[in-house]
Amino acid sequence: MSPRTLNDIGEDGVIQLIHGRWLASLPPRVRKGIGEDCAVLETDGDSLLLVTMDTLIEGIHFTAETLPPQALGWKALAVNISDIAAVGGTPHTAFLSIGTKSETEVSFVESFMAGFEAMATKAGIVLAGGDTVESPSGAVITITLLGGGLPEHLVYRSGAKIGDDIWVTGTLGNAAAGLFVLLNKKTSELAGYESLIAALQRPMPQLEIGKALGQSRLIHAMIDISDGVAKDLRHICEESGTGALVHASSIPMSDEMRKLALMVDKDPLDWALRGGEDYEILFTASPANEKQVVSLTAEVLGTPAVKIGTIDREDGIQLETDEGSQLLKPGGYMHFSK
Amino acid sequence: MSPRTLNDIGEDGVIQLIHGRWLASLPPRVRKGIGEDCAVLETDGDSLLLVTMDTLIEGIHFTAETLPPQALGWKALAVNISDIAAVGGTPHTAFLSIGTKSETEVSFVESFMAGFEAMATKAGIVLAGGDTVESPSGAVITITLLGGGLPEHLVYRSGAKIGDDIWVTGTLGNAAAGLFVLLNKKTSELAGYESLIAALQRPMPQLEIGKALGQSRLIHAMIDISDGVAKDLRHICEESGTGALVHASSIPMSDEMRKLALMVDKDPLDWALRGGEDYEILFTASPANEKQVVSLTAEVLGTPAVKIGTIDREDGIQLETDEGSQLLKPGGYMHFSK
Repeated sequence: MSPRTLNDIGEDGVIQLIHGRWLASLPPRVRKGIGEDCAVLETDGDSLLLVTMDTLIEGIHFTAETLPPQALGWKALAVNISDIAAVGGTPHTAFLSIGTKSETEVSFVESFMAGFEAMATKAGIVLAGGDTVESPSGAVITITLLGGGLPEHLVYRSGAKIGDDIWVTGTLGNAAAGLFVLLNKKTSELAGYESLIAALQRPMPQLEIGKALGQSRLIHAMIDISDGVAKDLRHICEESGTGALVHASSIPMSDEMRKLALMVDKDPLDWALRGGEDYEILFTASPANEKQVVSLTAEVLGTPAVKIGTIDREDGIQLETDEGSQLLKPGGYMHFSK
Repeated sequence: MSPRTLNDIGEDGVIQLIHGRWLASLPPRVRKGIGEDCAVLETDGDSLLLVTMDTLIEGIHFTAETLPPQALGWKALAVNISDIAAVGGTPHTAFLSIGTKSETEVSFVESFMAGFEAMATKAGIVLAGGDTVESPSGAVITITLLGGGLPEHLVYRSGAKIGDDIWVTGTLGNAAAGLFVLLNKKTSELAGYESLIAALQRPMPQLEIGKALGQSRLIHAMIDISDGVAKDLRHICEESGTGALVHASSIPMSDEMRKLALMVDKDPLDWALRGGEDYEILFTASPANEKQVVSLTAEVLGTPAVKIGTIDREDGIQLETDEGSQLLKPGGYMHFSK
């Protein structure tokens, strides 16, 4: 028998292999570790320290075609900001490790940093350290982002309650549609798809609404939509010990995305629920707070958040469509899966 | 003319490209950024937050031959601990991003984590998060390590004063000698070199002496010897605005290292001053504190630190040998250099 590989155990298996022993024995000062959007650590001050770390690898997470250097710099930081936003925190200090081939052009690093700086400036983040190394293959980017928040303002995956409404901000599936465009269209055919490509390359982390919801005390649970609703809502349910019912007809989708899907014979709902990389916010709140949720999100975002379903006590996530109800299968990108 | 590459500007050029603009405008809450062993951040508590981040890439920093998985897990954490030790801080929480090929054997991750856990347990560190991703080529490891320390206990590179003695702990050049052994000897010829190989594969960060020196108030400046005295003492001098004189005859070297160098016709002094990866501590202190430095280091380490030279006002670092005095050229590994 050949030895077991990471392929055989998949991403969840690898995470268990690395973190399993630690999860069982984390000290109380680590309030949240793996299993939350970011780690939440007690300090000797009033604020909790929030820490998130994400790695993007050329050829796995992106290619030069899907994510040019400036977009890479922006997005590498944006996805980390989204993790801090997803608990209602405020990011402040970034650390950047960048590995590149030695024959990489200087202009690559300049463009990368221009994108990084644009995102950092928007979010009030400074770069305070990191590492620069040579990489034998493509670019390897790891960012560690620190943030803070008062305990009473932070909202976790685990807080969902039976009967809660499930809400999402923005429209879903645009990034997946943008990726489809870049992988399937020639450069001369990209006109008209700018908003979908921008959704993929220049995601805007929902920092303001994350903070506003956290401070409002109106909501019970929150997560960012990085892997797609199918997987991210599952995280909420697993951590909260609940199930969920999602109404397919309520999923917010952009006209551009629907139009493209129709044209290329794809299911827009699949892009919206399983595409991922939208970096919108999914949260749950008591139905009693509906009006306040609508007015708060409308005030901060311009458009109110949309109610897509309900937290319930059933196992798993049910998707209600015109053809009846079915189990929403897990989706979203998994590393190491065959 | 072909476009400039990272090769053309070298590691220092890349660091300037990435951090130059930030260094000029870091807010006061970032007390130290790039240019120190770790970043030093103010919090809303009494302690300062220490952050360091290091990336190890297969084929650049190590190969499966020079660093088997268990040693890799140990060393990846140890080099980060050394950065916190070098300011006199206490590390507490680690974040690990690990990228591997999907056909990597499960036993690789198990061995890596066994080494990581052994080092973490020794240093009182917990693992609270990170990322697991697929890498198309070899292993890519990034660790971010957080620590803390009271402002009055931390010691920086920039504090050296004219007239200070320069001290180092341990013996130098063992890791370089260990690397030479692994690269040049057959497996059947490794007997007798265990201590040199261990110096390379299982470095012991000088956490206890770093903290003791910081809290003693006996010293002015401190750094860990990761790149070799030639380069690390230069960092002290540059940050402190001083020069230095180093006595070649005072550099502490192990018998094993000297013996090997003699046998293979290498200069032991070159390994000691430019080999790097020793993870010993270099510090400077007023000559008035000599006796106390000797007794404190002897108490903590078993063997006292060794005085190797003096901080002076001359430019650069002079190396005094039997043949007279010469400028100690920068050495140590540089990324992106031709």
